[in-house]
Amino acid sequence: MVNIAVLGYGTVGSGIVEVIKTNQKIVDAKANDQLHVKYVLDLRDFPGDPVEEILTHDFEDIINDPEVDIVAEAMGGLNPAFTFAKRTLEAGKNYCTSNKALVAAHGAELMQIAKDNHVNFMFEAAVGGGIPIIRPLYQCLTADDIVEITGIINGTTNYMLTKMNTEGVSYDAVLKQAQELGYAEADPTADVEGFDATRKIAILSSLTYGQQVDFEDIPTTGISKITDKDFAYANKLGLGIKLFASVRKQGDKIYSYVAPTMVSDKHPLFPVNGVLNGVLVRGNMLGDTMFFGSGAGKLPTASAVVSDIVEEAKNLKNTVLPTWTPEKRRLADAEDLAFVYFVRASKNAMFDAKNLFVPKEIYDDVVEGEFAFFTEKMSGKELAEKLAKMDGVLSVIRRED
Amino acid sequence: MVNIAVLGYGTVGSGIVEVIKTNQKIVDAKANDQLHVKYVLDLRDFPGDPVEEILTHDFEDIINDPEVDIVAEAMGGLNPAFTFAKRTLEAGKNYCTSNKALVAAHGAELMQIAKDNHVNFMFEAAVGGGIPIIRPLYQCLTADDIVEITGIINGTTNYMLTKMNTEGVSYDAVLKQAQELGYAEADPTADVEGFDATRKIAILSSLTYGQQVDFEDIPTTGISKITDKDFAYANKLGLGIKLFASVRKQGDKIYSYVAPTMVSDKHPLFPVNGVLNGVLVRGNMLGDTMFFGSGAGKLPTASAVVSDIVEEAKNLKNTVLPTWTPEKRRLADAEDLAFVYFVRASKNAMFDAKNLFVPKEIYDDVVEGEFAFFTEKMSGKELAEKLAKMDGVLSVIRRED
Repeated sequence: MVNIAVLGYGTVGSGIVEVIKTNQKIVDAKANDQLHVKYVLDLRDFPGDPVEEILTHDFEDIINDPEVDIVAEAMGGLNPAFTFAKRTLEAGKNYCTSNKALVAAHGAELMQIAKDNHVNFMFEAAVGGGIPIIRPLYQCLTADDIVEITGIINGTTNYMLTKMNTEGVSYDAVLKQAQELGYAEADPTADVEGFDATRKIAILSSLTYGQQVDFEDIPTTGISKITDKDFAYANKLGLGIKLFASVRKQGDKIYSYVAPTMVSDKHPLFPVNGVLNGVLVRGNMLGDTMFFGSGAGKLPTASAVVSDIVEEAKNLKNTVLPTWTPEKRRLADAEDLAFVYFVRASKNAMFDAKNLFVPKEIYDDVVEGEFAFFTEKMSGKELAEKLAKMDGVLSVIRRED
Repeated sequence: MVNIAVLGYGTVGSGIVEVIKTNQKIVDAKANDQLHVKYVLDLRDFPGDPVEEILTHDFEDIINDPEVDIVAEAMGGLNPAFTFAKRTLEAGKNYCTSNKALVAAHGAELMQIAKDNHVNFMFEAAVGGGIPIIRPLYQCLTADDIVEITGIINGTTNYMLTKMNTEGVSYDAVLKQAQELGYAEADPTADVEGFDATRKIAILSSLTYGQQVDFEDIPTTGISKITDKDFAYANKLGLGIKLFASVRKQGDKIYSYVAPTMVSDKHPLFPVNGVLNGVLVRGNMLGDTMFFGSGAGKLPTASAVVSDIVEEAKNLKNTVLPTWTPEKRRLADAEDLAFVYFVRASKNAMFDAKNLFVPKEIYDDVVEGEFAFFTEKMSGKELAEKLAKMDGVLSVIRRED
């Protein structure tokens, strides 16, 4: 029997208990052992809930029980999760988590502690929710030089952008809707300003290139400046606008950024709509492989955590996840990457636009009093220099096909 | 150092050598050891090719060399591949292959021999080419009861159907094109009649449900009866026609079939066009996860074989792939599954159609002299009974959304 403690009995935590209970036979067969939830830690009480029997308010009960093999955390936040993770691993127990903040901030350190203690620190659910992406990156796509990972890995913003696209609603209206439906939090900053996506792409980058990529180093633009006017053009041109979180390798340089991006239906991530998440992995031999699925939600996220539990149960005293080193990987300046840009400006900027850029076409009949065009391919620096010479710029969005 | 022998120096075999050579540092790091191609077996000579130095015409050189740890086969066909696989595993060496015919016919037996000898028999490249799907099924999606796998897993037919859809060309014309481009073989039967897809879904079914699913038991309809007239309706209605290979679990019953299917843009596999492959995996907790990528091609397929080599190199004396038992899994009758069907018929069948079915709409202005409609949802048996009472039926295609 493999004994498990679940930290946090909120949405994901209760999902973990439910997945194991519902699929007990299947997970036992996959783990070659019987999985048994021995403790659930939560500060709250749950009168009447069957979890009462195994509920504890005290982490010491768990850490001091030599029978506990695996601790699955779904509390979120850095504290006390970081302390709990460290103590769990140091006690020679395995840890898995859906907590991206923890992994982005302390992943390298925790993996090293896991390795030193011959146990595992896993986090399949921290990126892409239910989509298997962490394990494929380290177990499946092992023959390739990974030259790009681009993900739509924040469900809230993708839901909002999809609604704006298909229903022509304004940013404020769609944010309110998303909050009412529980897709966005009361303080939506982490999602809409891109910080959630930044943490996730930092995790994928660190894992892929084997060194700590700090999320603070990744230039991040969210979706809060995207308006229904941008979508008026996108719709007319058959384009989508997605929040891309991307890491790219060119020679020895690694670039990463998070930014809204206009895409045509030729782009492999174009069909990723609504709360769906999607990750494109480009290998130098493999070409493009895409992973699509539920980026959030109780059971999909819990399913990913339980897949970590199963793998840890098979490797209780054997570290299987490759560590990334805490040595920091310096990112090259993402402003050096070249893109085509979509530029919207008020009509009085027409002369400047034609002087500074070589637009193939000017779209001046979509929104009154303004026009838009696509620039030639150029670096962000070159673009900034030109835009500095131009008044009346309303919106700038990069484009990829 | 891990010594590898590559069997067959055709497209995939030479790709394996190329992937290892190009990405030597990366694959060595992933394998925690140095990968070294010591032999290439081929009946042909390759004067001037660097492979000459390691070329052998005699399998005995490989099987008798105690330094060889891994044999990677890319010859295709059952003979002599089956003999080579068996002898390799019995000699305590690992085997990996892109040969779906071999896996579908002898997978259970070869996995058992591998297990008995504490080595591995792997076949990531046998289904979906470069798309990681075998390894995700046994290593990643371990928390779920897999209730459906549906794949577009034959690139030739998907290329042909996409061309027919977008360019309105006839079946014969597109087949000729595909042959000229090397996407279809001179004898295209295995692809166009669905037998290739059937072998692949049999492999995925066996792996998922742990028992041998014989491909001969899977009812298979290819695309050779799909005409440009079917696409005239599909285009008008915004639908695609895809060759689906599917396995579904309902209660304790497992159903499998291969058949052309009309899909709307709501279906997760709708965006899988051209030579792309796509696999949808539906779990009872996870919901839908999709894997898209290159289903064929020299380097993507070779990349998948090399990912097997890397995993075998890490587990030279440790069987990691779960076996499926040779005990045959009886499939339930796929004709019991209920679908909506698209039916095309000549105009004189209108009266019968309205009597036998409850069509919501009749499409009688798309192709002269005929009409089409969608049936209500019904089993294949019920459909067959009704169609037997109706003259002038031109085409029947199942539909899914």
